[in-house]
Amino acid sequence: MYNIITKKKHGLELTADEISYFVNGYTDGSIPDYQMSALLMAICLKGMNERETYELTMAMAKSGDMLSMDKISKITADKHSTGGVGDKTSLIVAPIAAANGVAVAKMSGRGLGHTGGTIDKLESIEGFQTELSEEEFVSIVNKTGMAIAGQSAHLAPADKKLYALRDVTATVDSIPLIASSIMSKKLAAGAEVIVLDVKTGSGAFMKDIPSAKLLAEEMIKIGLSAGRRMFALITDMNQPLGNWVGNRLEVLEAVECLKGEGPADLLDASLYLSALILLGAGKSESIEQGRELALKTVKNGKALQKFKEFVTAQHGDPEPLLKSESKDAYEKSLCVNSEKSGVITSIDTEAVGMASLYLGGGRERKEDSIDYNVGLYIEKKIGDRIEKGETLVRMVAGERSDLERAETAIKNAYVIEADPDKKAVIKPKAHVYGCYVGTEYHELNSL
Amino acid sequence: MYNIITKKKHGLELTADEISYFVNGYTDGSIPDYQMSALLMAICLKGMNERETYELTMAMAKSGDMLSMDKISKITADKHSTGGVGDKTSLIVAPIAAANGVAVAKMSGRGLGHTGGTIDKLESIEGFQTELSEEEFVSIVNKTGMAIAGQSAHLAPADKKLYALRDVTATVDSIPLIASSIMSKKLAAGAEVIVLDVKTGSGAFMKDIPSAKLLAEEMIKIGLSAGRRMFALITDMNQPLGNWVGNRLEVLEAVECLKGEGPADLLDASLYLSALILLGAGKSESIEQGRELALKTVKNGKALQKFKEFVTAQHGDPEPLLKSESKDAYEKSLCVNSEKSGVITSIDTEAVGMASLYLGGGRERKEDSIDYNVGLYIEKKIGDRIEKGETLVRMVAGERSDLERAETAIKNAYVIEADPDKKAVIKPKAHVYGCYVGTEYHELNSL
Repeated sequence: MYNIITKKKHGLELTADEISYFVNGYTDGSIPDYQMSALLMAICLKGMNERETYELTMAMAKSGDMLSMDKISKITADKHSTGGVGDKTSLIVAPIAAANGVAVAKMSGRGLGHTGGTIDKLESIEGFQTELSEEEFVSIVNKTGMAIAGQSAHLAPADKKLYALRDVTATVDSIPLIASSIMSKKLAAGAEVIVLDVKTGSGAFMKDIPSAKLLAEEMIKIGLSAGRRMFALITDMNQPLGNWVGNRLEVLEAVECLKGEGPADLLDASLYLSALILLGAGKSESIEQGRELALKTVKNGKALQKFKEFVTAQHGDPEPLLKSESKDAYEKSLCVNSEKSGVITSIDTEAVGMASLYLGGGRERKEDSIDYNVGLYIEKKIGDRIEKGETLVRMVAGERSDLERAETAIKNAYVIEADPDKKAVIKPKAHVYGCYVGTEYHELNSL
Repeated sequence: MYNIITKKKHGLELTADEISYFVNGYTDGSIPDYQMSALLMAICLKGMNERETYELTMAMAKSGDMLSMDKISKITADKHSTGGVGDKTSLIVAPIAAANGVAVAKMSGRGLGHTGGTIDKLESIEGFQTELSEEEFVSIVNKTGMAIAGQSAHLAPADKKLYALRDVTATVDSIPLIASSIMSKKLAAGAEVIVLDVKTGSGAFMKDIPSAKLLAEEMIKIGLSAGRRMFALITDMNQPLGNWVGNRLEVLEAVECLKGEGPADLLDASLYLSALILLGAGKSESIEQGRELALKTVKNGKALQKFKEFVTAQHGDPEPLLKSESKDAYEKSLCVNSEKSGVITSIDTEAVGMASLYLGGGRERKEDSIDYNVGLYIEKKIGDRIEKGETLVRMVAGERSDLERAETAIKNAYVIEADPDKKAVIKPKAHVYGCYVGTEYHELNSL
């Protein structure tokens, strides 16, 4: 291990044997934390090339179970987002894909810090089960065309242990480490078609489009080397996606979207993600054709129907989700009003995510519990004009909410300029910037 | 701690508060190894400026006892070597300085790996005590003018803990970390005059003169900032110093040197180190004058007399050291002969040090015990001509000696060229390359 650390410290390439040595040694506990963290810092500062990153990914994927999709009769697809605020697209995209004959067998994570997790959102549904045996999981996918389960401890355990260490040693922000962490889980989860949603902006890990593209390309190359069909969408996270932030409130908004009534940005991103899945699964011949097919499935109610089947199959009750619960929440909410007039030029999206956490809707530490019902409604977005005293954001509070902390975070998150230079208004050009079909990039100007 | 790691990872300067926070937190155990090793790697790769290095040194020095020289009547001096093979200069320099009225109150370490340690050498003397109470230490210095004790656990404990971590995380070779480690101990030990012997070459940490000078300058600046009188000698370690390697054998060679009979390179380096101490203590007005004064003390027997007093004061018996023991050892030794004829163009000095360790004279791990009597006699040095079958090195073996491993290491350490290009012969120009008086460098061409 000492020699491996020394090699990487000097910027040298590690062999496949060296990489699997440290991944396996760290997973089985024979390599101590303090040596691993020194190596992680050296990787952060000296990088890893394409081959090393691929081998790191494969070593982590192989550290646990490699799921087989043999027992699933249809072509399988998986969708992964790099994380954002208000991102409930999985709940929309999976039913659309399933309604079009693609099997979505998805393993998801929980939220931590300012980002939410699909599993937490689903657990806000009465009775919903996220812990499924492998047999049950496969049987639900075969029956309804989709299932979403919590990531099993046997899936890429090396990544789990390494991620926990990176989290406390400031070694998270390295493209090879991020790409291999995400892709090790995706490869172990076994789907043939993998669609990545790489977020960029103030609420995302990648703060600008070039770095988001770099991360997307790195992950695509790994997936292609492992024989998967790879796609990625580059989407905006300079402000929350849709209007609602908060676990149950996001599920309700996803249902609105499946009814064809949700916010435009959320529907748009979801349709493009669905389009890539449909293209990858051979259900359409172009992105545009896939997008039309997806939209059709929303308009004819088949996607919503699929969502209801999926919730029922995982022991949840979909009926309450179809009622006017979010309207009630909106009416009972507390307003955070602007202290000045002007135009909103930017929103610190990470801070908005943290405000939701302060209300009780997120976790500061893994062991924290969540209040599923709290959250935020984003009234004003970038480019909007606001007058002093008008509402920026509404807060849906609960018993454990720290209202003062949440309100302060929201107020500080908004940049409002009285008389902004036109150039200073950073209105996102689109919610979707472009997409990768394999390694080929296409600009998209959706809205 | 997370923010401190992040700052250094991005190459930013740490504040004094941040530096003392991580030094104190790591020493008291509130900062875990894995965070500290990530920070150490970031420091290795991003560096530390002069101010940060000084503050790191001071924080480590203050982590334990700061010895006071108030109870010592004369001016105090300390000498430190960055470590080498066959380096027994402390045993020669300290008596010379003491014989000239300078108090040498020295804390020394044990050997590890290919380098020896003064404490191990002294413990090869019958009855010699290296563990002294502070009172006893001060009283011996006041009585005989010198004392050498093992480094107390209360001296810079932060450095001790950090060094152990650096040793297993490949974060040793960083000039700010090396300089602060050495200087924290020297500052805590309290001497007014500090003379550093910075080794360069195949057996040293610093492989070339420019990097040795860089390390020397870094340490000198720290010492000057802390108000000490600083000096450094840049000396050669492309081959062992003197002829003998091994604990007791080196003590015997030091005694030869104090009798005026030792090898020229060893005497030369010792006289220059003594000269710097005498200059720093105001006992001479120039390096040359100090060197003459030192040589005079050897020639008139006063240095040897001081050595005997010192050994006696620390409960050792000097008499056996004055007999012909090394001659006997030489006669009973085993020859390692050359397998070819030619000229010796280089010696892997670290490998020679390891050969002595294989004979039982060193430690692979801290807890290993030592056979004080084993060692090596270096017959041939760089530039010497050798015929096939002639002896390169003689081995003085013991019960635990791994003769085969030692012999192989020695044979592999020597590069012998049958018909060397004259330029290829890297005969060290001098044993002493130059010295620093404060930050001022002087070239020296001693031999």
